[in-house]
Amino acid sequence: MAAGCVIGVDLGGTKLLAGVVDSELNVRHRAFRKAREGHDAEGLIDLLVSTVEQAREAAGEEIRAVGFGIPSLVDAQTGVANTTVHLPLRDVPFRDVMAERLGLPVAVDNDANGAMVAEHRRGAARGARTAALLTLGTGIGGGIIVDDKIVHGASGAAGEWGHMVVDVNGPLCTCGNRGCLETVVSGTALGREAARMAHELPDSGFGRALAAGREISGMLATELAHDGDPVARDVVASVGHYLGVGIGNVVNILNPEVVVVGGGVIAAGELLLEPARRVVAERALAPSRDQVRIVPTRFGDASGMIGAALLAMDLADGRQAP
Amino acid sequence: MAAGCVIGVDLGGTKLLAGVVDSELNVRHRAFRKAREGHDAEGLIDLLVSTVEQAREAAGEEIRAVGFGIPSLVDAQTGVANTTVHLPLRDVPFRDVMAERLGLPVAVDNDANGAMVAEHRRGAARGARTAALLTLGTGIGGGIIVDDKIVHGASGAAGEWGHMVVDVNGPLCTCGNRGCLETVVSGTALGREAARMAHELPDSGFGRALAAGREISGMLATELAHDGDPVARDVVASVGHYLGVGIGNVVNILNPEVVVVGGGVIAAGELLLEPARRVVAERALAPSRDQVRIVPTRFGDASGMIGAALLAMDLADGRQAP
Repeated sequence: MAAGCVIGVDLGGTKLLAGVVDSELNVRHRAFRKAREGHDAEGLIDLLVSTVEQAREAAGEEIRAVGFGIPSLVDAQTGVANTTVHLPLRDVPFRDVMAERLGLPVAVDNDANGAMVAEHRRGAARGARTAALLTLGTGIGGGIIVDDKIVHGASGAAGEWGHMVVDVNGPLCTCGNRGCLETVVSGTALGREAARMAHELPDSGFGRALAAGREISGMLATELAHDGDPVARDVVASVGHYLGVGIGNVVNILNPEVVVVGGGVIAAGELLLEPARRVVAERALAPSRDQVRIVPTRFGDASGMIGAALLAMDLADGRQAP
Repeated sequence: MAAGCVIGVDLGGTKLLAGVVDSELNVRHRAFRKAREGHDAEGLIDLLVSTVEQAREAAGEEIRAVGFGIPSLVDAQTGVANTTVHLPLRDVPFRDVMAERLGLPVAVDNDANGAMVAEHRRGAARGARTAALLTLGTGIGGGIIVDDKIVHGASGAAGEWGHMVVDVNGPLCTCGNRGCLETVVSGTALGREAARMAHELPDSGFGRALAAGREISGMLATELAHDGDPVARDVVASVGHYLGVGIGNVVNILNPEVVVVGGGVIAAGELLLEPARRVVAERALAPSRDQVRIVPTRFGDASGMIGAALLAMDLADGRQAP
């Protein structure tokens, strides 16, 4: 592998993480921004450019390429962002625009595909020929590995586990469908359940946090659950239950060796995964349910960024993207 | 391709179809049996052997190999049938037992994988690099093609679209889970809805059929719907609606070029597929929903048998199974 660093950028629904990554996957520098709602496409691209430039200056050495993981269905041939549920990038020729603005080679893929690549090549799914990934953040991102390769589908849109209906008459999803996994399992769903508890149980940890003027979020639920708060643990466990229903579907559909769970919500760790594993053991088909490992990402919140960096390295080294 | 015929056998939950198939995929002879419930493994294997022997005698020429599609999760390495929801084949070393009894080379795969192979190589999914198949019979069988190959998963259990939960608190499934697609979309589900209507609406076509002592089945619902009976059309359309929810999930997860629908229930044709396509157009993600074709099997009820014959030809020709 050639020497020199690349920059990996993970653009989530609400945050933006850029990292200067060397060929050993050490993260030399990081730049973090809120990808605030209200940006139009131009504003968002300006934000991305300035974040990459900041990381580039911090690196103080030549950058070989930049990789982006974006929460869009990306056309692998053209680098155009198609549907984007959470950000204003619809129909933007993302790769070409960024390459021109940055003056560097640019690779782009769906953010969850990037995370899947990182976990498969160097992380929790290493060695698996069939694997799936769910990243639980603002929404759910998803990736699929079959025969050691990312499954892109006909137009780069495969892997949307978050928009798998599990509750046919359930709550409306941002995508317009009803009862998608994302409506019951995501940082947003966790925050919504926490807020409901804050109002229903003013004496609970959530209730006291609300009275103290704190933001009632999925992150708070995770924090309180780790502190042993019983209501917060129940809220995390109920999201874990639905996660188990979703992973049970993944197991029956794909019969993977490993399902990797990432995104901000995985900060809850075993408090989330243990109930999910129990549901899979009870509800999915044998022998698939007995063979699958359900594990957190190795790279935590940085999977997407590391994956984007790997895409950039592939591009700089002239390797075919996976 | 070498000359000579093979025998393909499709073992469904309630029926058994064997065909003598030549290298041009012409079906020279057929043998059809009911695979009656109440058989134990030995009785079922005797039934299979006698059906194959009948087809072999009718052929009057050398048979090169026999292929079986069975409604089980089949271990591709050993030919052992693992979980079988509808038949008593659990843990039976199916391939070796049949090869010994028949004195012929035997290939075996999941019945729906066989149907998927037939439709992909020679039928409705020809030319697609990413495709899925759902066969609607007693239960739902499923197959997945990625990069022109069957997705088997870690242990041959992939493709179980029928055991994808779409209604998390829904009816109990034969697999022990709740709200699997199979509980609302299958010949069994169609027959159950028809029976409900027969009792609720004695003046309907179903009610009159019940009074006349006819069996109220999915097949009757299809027959009456084709005759223009409005209640029967509604029953078929409601199953088509749920089929659309299931195919919407397939589309979001896999982004396939084509979804092929087969099995006995596809006899309802457009009365089933048209409502399904409408739900996919309304509920699945763009651009996947706009790119996918949702079509019936080319080989109709014979997809599984033709697929099993193709597996037998691969074996006889020394080709790697897909």
